[in-house]
Amino acid sequence: MPDFTDHLQPAHDGTATLQAERDSSDIGVPQLAKHLLDRDGFLERQERVLKVLSKEKLFKKSQQLNLSRPERYHLGLARAKAIQRLSRSEGWDSADYQIAEYLNDEMSPYFLHMSMFVTTVREQGSTEQQKYWMPKILNYDIIGCYAQTELGHGSNVRGLETTAKWDPAKKEFEIHSPYLTASKWWNGSMGRTATHAIVVAQLLLLKPNRKSSGPPTDADYESHGPQTFILQIRDKVTHQPLPGIAVGDIGPKYGYASMDNGYMLFDHFRVPRSAMLSRYAEVSDETGAFVRTGHPAVVYGSLTFVRGQIIMHARLVLARAVTVSVRYCCVRRQFKDRDSKNPSDDEMKVLDYPTVQIRILPLLATTFALHYTGEYMYRLYNQSRQTIEKGDFGPLAELHSASSGLKSLCTMLAADGIETCRRAMGGHGFGGGSGLIGLNSDYLSKPTVEGDNWMITQQVAAYLIKKMTDNIANPDRPPKDPTDELFQFYLKNRGHRIPQSVVKDQKIVDDQNIVEIFQWRAADLSYRAYQARVVEKKPWTRLMIQLHNLSRAYSEQILVTNFYNSFSSAAKTLSGPTPEVLRTCFRLYALYTLDTYASSFTMTTAVSAESVYGLQDAIVDLMGELRPHAVKLVDAWTIPDWLLDSALGKYDGKVYEELFDMAHRRNPLNEVTFNPDWRSEEIVLGSGDGGRQVLAKL
Amino acid sequence: MPDFTDHLQPAHDGTATLQAERDSSDIGVPQLAKHLLDRDGFLERQERVLKVLSKEKLFKKSQQLNLSRPERYHLGLARAKAIQRLSRSEGWDSADYQIAEYLNDEMSPYFLHMSMFVTTVREQGSTEQQKYWMPKILNYDIIGCYAQTELGHGSNVRGLETTAKWDPAKKEFEIHSPYLTASKWWNGSMGRTATHAIVVAQLLLLKPNRKSSGPPTDADYESHGPQTFILQIRDKVTHQPLPGIAVGDIGPKYGYASMDNGYMLFDHFRVPRSAMLSRYAEVSDETGAFVRTGHPAVVYGSLTFVRGQIIMHARLVLARAVTVSVRYCCVRRQFKDRDSKNPSDDEMKVLDYPTVQIRILPLLATTFALHYTGEYMYRLYNQSRQTIEKGDFGPLAELHSASSGLKSLCTMLAADGIETCRRAMGGHGFGGGSGLIGLNSDYLSKPTVEGDNWMITQQVAAYLIKKMTDNIANPDRPPKDPTDELFQFYLKNRGHRIPQSVVKDQKIVDDQNIVEIFQWRAADLSYRAYQARVVEKKPWTRLMIQLHNLSRAYSEQILVTNFYNSFSSAAKTLSGPTPEVLRTCFRLYALYTLDTYASSFTMTTAVSAESVYGLQDAIVDLMGELRPHAVKLVDAWTIPDWLLDSALGKYDGKVYEELFDMAHRRNPLNEVTFNPDWRSEEIVLGSGDGGRQVLAKL
Repeated sequence: MPDFTDHLQPAHDGTATLQAERDSSDIGVPQLAKHLLDRDGFLERQERVLKVLSKEKLFKKSQQLNLSRPERYHLGLARAKAIQRLSRSEGWDSADYQIAEYLNDEMSPYFLHMSMFVTTVREQGSTEQQKYWMPKILNYDIIGCYAQTELGHGSNVRGLETTAKWDPAKKEFEIHSPYLTASKWWNGSMGRTATHAIVVAQLLLLKPNRKSSGPPTDADYESHGPQTFILQIRDKVTHQPLPGIAVGDIGPKYGYASMDNGYMLFDHFRVPRSAMLSRYAEVSDETGAFVRTGHPAVVYGSLTFVRGQIIMHARLVLARAVTVSVRYCCVRRQFKDRDSKNPSDDEMKVLDYPTVQIRILPLLATTFALHYTGEYMYRLYNQSRQTIEKGDFGPLAELHSASSGLKSLCTMLAADGIETCRRAMGGHGFGGGSGLIGLNSDYLSKPTVEGDNWMITQQVAAYLIKKMTDNIANPDRPPKDPTDELFQFYLKNRGHRIPQSVVKDQKIVDDQNIVEIFQWRAADLSYRAYQARVVEKKPWTRLMIQLHNLSRAYSEQILVTNFYNSFSSAAKTLSGPTPEVLRTCFRLYALYTLDTYASSFTMTTAVSAESVYGLQDAIVDLMGELRPHAVKLVDAWTIPDWLLDSALGKYDGKVYEELFDMAHRRNPLNEVTFNPDWRSEEIVLGSGDGGRQVLAKL
Repeated sequence: MPDFTDHLQPAHDGTATLQAERDSSDIGVPQLAKHLLDRDGFLERQERVLKVLSKEKLFKKSQQLNLSRPERYHLGLARAKAIQRLSRSEGWDSADYQIAEYLNDEMSPYFLHMSMFVTTVREQGSTEQQKYWMPKILNYDIIGCYAQTELGHGSNVRGLETTAKWDPAKKEFEIHSPYLTASKWWNGSMGRTATHAIVVAQLLLLKPNRKSSGPPTDADYESHGPQTFILQIRDKVTHQPLPGIAVGDIGPKYGYASMDNGYMLFDHFRVPRSAMLSRYAEVSDETGAFVRTGHPAVVYGSLTFVRGQIIMHARLVLARAVTVSVRYCCVRRQFKDRDSKNPSDDEMKVLDYPTVQIRILPLLATTFALHYTGEYMYRLYNQSRQTIEKGDFGPLAELHSASSGLKSLCTMLAADGIETCRRAMGGHGFGGGSGLIGLNSDYLSKPTVEGDNWMITQQVAAYLIKKMTDNIANPDRPPKDPTDELFQFYLKNRGHRIPQSVVKDQKIVDDQNIVEIFQWRAADLSYRAYQARVVEKKPWTRLMIQLHNLSRAYSEQILVTNFYNSFSSAAKTLSGPTPEVLRTCFRLYALYTLDTYASSFTMTTAVSAESVYGLQDAIVDLMGELRPHAVKLVDAWTIPDWLLDSALGKYDGKVYEELFDMAHRRNPLNEVTFNPDWRSEEIVLGSGDGGRQVLAKL
């Protein structure tokens, strides 16, 4: 409906503002974008898939925040199915499909089917099992999920309570939930969608030397640890749970509204012998004995793969939050410069305030830090994967350690970073126009899922203590990996370490020096952990916080090292000011981290205390150098407006126009007139319903 | 429907676990609860009001997370109206009413009416205006809101764009929105509920020495700054906006689903002269000149009051998150002790892991730190208020500074603390059973609302620089307040400062010493700011981050000082181990803060670097001392299960039973069977709707 607001303009033109920002930096956005996102044709795929999705009404995002959680699952399932159909009609390959999921930006009810479910069958199924299951899976004739975590156990997989008891007479397994806490819990796609499930359960076999001759009791069984089973959980026609199974959705969560995370309990549910995935282990048909035919560590391979993907994803998530906040904070003006003498001065762009910069620009730098380590992880995973496939499990420890430490650090940086960006945008950051609500609430799962961020750092520390112990025992053995190299360097030099300077005469000393400082600190903390645990034999529990900090330092060292190595080589392919700007990002990320954990660096004699006190000034200078390029740097991440779904982050800077449009023209609440008088129970004016409609929903 | 899950029990009994926790501490919970919550009969009121609310179906919380945002406003309005009716039938006074709002735990669509709206009329209305408006307000015959913030301006009130132009001929004001960014924005209760509004607008009057004789142009007007007007915005019968007003709800936000934060634009909207609240300023009826009849600083009095309440509220919010996480982390068990030699050992309670303690226990200590400073602020506000009412505006600067710094620090501690507690609970923290989703998403507004947490710290720093300048100029003047005392002490001693030790031979040196360290750091940072700004004349903008850190240090010093003073005197009224446990909380809060910002303390020569390196061990010891009392300490905050609305935080420890009940028996999504086959567009199995219902909502 036309009204007097139609012709109103904002006091400042956001489009002109962002254009001026772009005009004032010589960074070549297409070149940098290609540098960042060229792998596997990401940019081309994104453009192509975006065209398809954005014209489908089903994928419109504008009313999403007005839907209830049950409605969001309905919508999520509709979209998941539509993407399947589009995938076929458009001839999308699996990388295109993943781009579609990324752009659709919600956890699909099919997600687990095409990730953990298919991966587990592929990795752990025997040739025969794969032959049977894979066509059904790839054709989506069945929908699978992955039921590992339980109500009572997440991190401690060995403590799972669900049992799979082998019945040698009937040649069947009996899957059973002895306690309420044995209920499978959190498992995605299981609540309402899946027809089948991978179930991880304790394999119980009769003890070989059992004495009693009557029917076996619990004491006659022994556990062979968690094993994986594939089973049908719902009827093919009615989609009702099979008898002996209770399964459903666990209810609303912080995020993942579109996903049916589920619970599942078994009441002596029987499955045939073929249900156990038997590439690496099986129960002998004849003797009922446990037969291992491969390395059990591979069972955790899928989890490591998921962790790798999580790190690769973190950079784009953080880039998205940074994109929104950088653009908005250029358009947003507030207060004149306190020292301004000219009354006609404009109010300042808030991104010109160091108090805003210090929250956003180090995170902008972090997006690149995550990127280069994401690329590194990708290479490391593929290299190790090949070795493992060949039967050599040697690299698994290094891979597991790196993936654990980095998963913990990178998801924390991204999760905290979203919220930091949001707060940096002041009041409007709290509104739906930020476009960060869904991203934020979904992403908050990452610090605790697929290995809790605090728990898994213990594994990193254990690995580093072992490496340090080995290197102390054999100081001259040839180094097998960068960690060996670092520890050997450290052990040779620790007797005569001179704490380094980062900043001298208000200048950064040099970049290689920064890398060395991060590495030294990680090595020294490893040595301290070795000293406390191996030499002084302190209780593990007592050391836990120290070990967590060690993991963080070790992972930060990986980020800094990769960042340094990569921008150095990137300088050959990038032109204009871009290499220098990336160097500034490297320095900003490193110095900001150094400043935040300063006492850890001084305690380990990595840097001198005096040098630390100069960091804040150096950081303000670095932010000043980066500031003119901020808009173009976020442009290079090439996050389409359609995905951003953010008034504040619009590419064209029409922030206020979009916010007003959302409120005045697209908000369904404004189509209803209410009765605000407390004397009446009526809620909608003139409805005379006496409030009954509201009560009915409770 | 009964099924095989009905008789399942968790592997461990949560009730017995929490009972054992309670049995192992001698803290007197009722005594400590009274110590914390005795003010104005809080505990008695809570119990009485809870009985009333909890038996009304309208206030049931169990389906809240399944409602859409528009439904949440319907519900919020219904509840606001019901509380009005209950308030009258039960004879609740205003403190009871506030308890009802606290227990109802959602932002009421009437909230602004009884806070900023009535406060502004009371403080800024003339006697005549109060006589006219107050009966209507107190009787809720009208519903008011407070329209200050605009789309383009929040923090900078002087930059507001809405104008109120005086028409001397008609003796009317013309309220107008010249730009889109002039739209009032965010104003609570305005979107759908309010009938009236306080509108803050730039008062434009004709220049007294205007030359031209024709009709006045814009250049003939001059602004007299933001002034407050009271006006009707909606029709009494139809509840439609009056002609010349566009008003509505701004749409979904992170939190505050039940609140109709609004936008409002004016098209040359005319109001009579009496609309301007005129206790301190008015437009002369005869000359059209601006007449000030009081101190303009009082205009910001209401905002200061709201800030005071925010600080008082923060402790209960944080206590709630800590209550949930402490109880859950006692019931939750995961992994056996890594050093355990006994295979029959139980898995450990996760609260026994230092890596869990370090996230929760310092926050438990922080609830008490906030409490004692909340009490301090309460006294300070009331003392200053009386002085201001008497016409002495002297204390306003100190009050404004303390309230700004503390608002910034305390809301950040509480907002971050909720999320820290959530993550400490691992996977289940992400679920609706945490009970933290609503609390979290609502509370995230606090760091940016009522003065952005980063922006307002600049005011604190400006105040401290001024105080330091004054004390340097007149070192021997009698101190007017604790800040003067501290600065004078600092100036006398800064030439011969010896950095102090906190920990010596693994023992904490003494408590008074800790207080002195925090105070010294704040004073030294104040001196550095003075030096940089006043002596070296550095640009304000360049110093902003340093100034923000100063405000934080100053406010931390207030928290530590008040905590120390209060537990010292509390020791006289509390028996058993409670005083010692509070002392442990004081030490833990202080040392944790010291460790987090260690380089700020060493740089200012408050402590020695060696002393800082011993903090982590001391903190682990303090947490060990606090651990046995954790459950009883959170019990003392007396947060009813009904308010917690949390499976994880249940008083009786029936965590898993409640989680399962929510999922299996109370989740509406499980009442629907879906069609998971991508080949069909049907969503609900058998409905044959072809997905049309989903599309209709987009």
